[in-house]
Amino acid sequence: MKHVTMIGTGLIGASVGLALRDAGFSGTITGIDASGEELTVAEQAGAISASARNPEAHAEAISASDVVVLAVPVLAILDWMGRIQPHLREGALVTDAGSTKAQIAVRAREMGMDFLPGHPMAGKERGGAALAEGSLFRGAPWIFTPLHPTTPLEQEWRDWVGKFGARVIDLDPERHDKLCAWVSHLPQMVSTAMTALLEDEIGDDADLRAIGGRALREMTRLGASPYSMWRDIALTNEVPIADTLLALEQRLQHMRENLKTLELREEFGKANEFKSRS
Amino acid sequence: MKHVTMIGTGLIGASVGLALRDAGFSGTITGIDASGEELTVAEQAGAISASARNPEAHAEAISASDVVVLAVPVLAILDWMGRIQPHLREGALVTDAGSTKAQIAVRAREMGMDFLPGHPMAGKERGGAALAEGSLFRGAPWIFTPLHPTTPLEQEWRDWVGKFGARVIDLDPERHDKLCAWVSHLPQMVSTAMTALLEDEIGDDADLRAIGGRALREMTRLGASPYSMWRDIALTNEVPIADTLLALEQRLQHMRENLKTLELREEFGKANEFKSRS
Repeated sequence: MKHVTMIGTGLIGASVGLALRDAGFSGTITGIDASGEELTVAEQAGAISASARNPEAHAEAISASDVVVLAVPVLAILDWMGRIQPHLREGALVTDAGSTKAQIAVRAREMGMDFLPGHPMAGKERGGAALAEGSLFRGAPWIFTPLHPTTPLEQEWRDWVGKFGARVIDLDPERHDKLCAWVSHLPQMVSTAMTALLEDEIGDDADLRAIGGRALREMTRLGASPYSMWRDIALTNEVPIADTLLALEQRLQHMRENLKTLELREEFGKANEFKSRS
Repeated sequence: MKHVTMIGTGLIGASVGLALRDAGFSGTITGIDASGEELTVAEQAGAISASARNPEAHAEAISASDVVVLAVPVLAILDWMGRIQPHLREGALVTDAGSTKAQIAVRAREMGMDFLPGHPMAGKERGGAALAEGSLFRGAPWIFTPLHPTTPLEQEWRDWVGKFGARVIDLDPERHDKLCAWVSHLPQMVSTAMTALLEDEIGDDADLRAIGGRALREMTRLGASPYSMWRDIALTNEVPIADTLLALEQRLQHMRENLKTLELREEFGKANEFKSRS
């Protein structure tokens, strides 16, 4: 791996570029981004060594690349897969950092691309190249959902990811999406729903603002997450997310109907058990 | 106020004792607790100056007190109100630190006691006198739900609470319970329900444990709360809590049915608005 094209030089893409440099990668990293400003910030930070700022430059960068990294939202990844394919050189590897994997895996199989779907589970509350850090992935899970046995170039990419300090985990794409629905998408949707409900019910109540404490702050923190980050996840993982939401609705109903019975003790006991494992 | 009896010398009661000392109170503070160990710890910490360890000693302490503070769970407060009444001296003030206020206010009115219902909104993840601190209430809301115009002794108690560094807020008891259902009880019940659901669905899944991040940790932190702390709250605030749970169930259903529509954007937008106010 000597030439890399990074499509998307926001928080994740620029952090991957910085992590590559920190790990000793000395080849070229050419950035592509819808925002010229993000490209400039990423280049100034040293996350990319060059910018491709028009379709001709994009094609040139891609055709020269050993590895193309797609670090944009999921729908944009699906879109870029079609746009880069005509320019990929023989043997080039495409990988990504998308939050859902099943639809991307299906598309990659259909296209017959050498594609290693990836998902670094790291981030910050706000995006952008300015917040990028080479240490972003240290200690974080980086999930791969491989579509075929590992090729030498894929192994090289996996080795770099290992050098970022990430914990590499392999999962089936559908299993990835179901697990992420439980551990990431459900908590987000619950926080958003509860925060939106609070806005409607008591958003302008000064007394309420005065008495809310840590529990309220914590359970609504994810309520600040922007729709733009979650739209593609909801669109490409609808059924697993809907399953988890329905299960929680039923659980809340059960709790509501049992506030005065020993069933409530069972619920607290089960929750305590989950926490005691971690 | 020269003589205080503190009924319940766990985290809250012992912290009130220490806060009184820090604020310059030099009278007696006699502790009563179901646990002899808690009494000993509180006395050693200087939170109380004496312990009353049997019914005769209890009666003696109460009959000598200007102020009796009930710092036990809500059902125990209701119980102690009946037990102390025969021993209260003329003009003595009773106040409490219970998490719900409507049932306590009703009982106090029925008994014709001089009672100032209070609720310091402070705490820690674990209880016990050993964790008590005089600074526990600094910056925290301390809600009163007064039943009549403030008497001189009530004003003196309010002044001490002000010296603890707490932000004193007066509310109607029913309004207190409704607001607390939104800002405290709903977040707790949701976290417990979601954590119990995760335990049932994926509690023993090692992959899941490996990929859960901050969102999961944060949204399930309250899942570690013990039933013993929440039983009395659920029992004495059932209707307001059930109302908030039903509203959230409906909101989650709406979200589930709109994962692919622009309604989801509305929900994120409302949640963002709530967060931008705080």
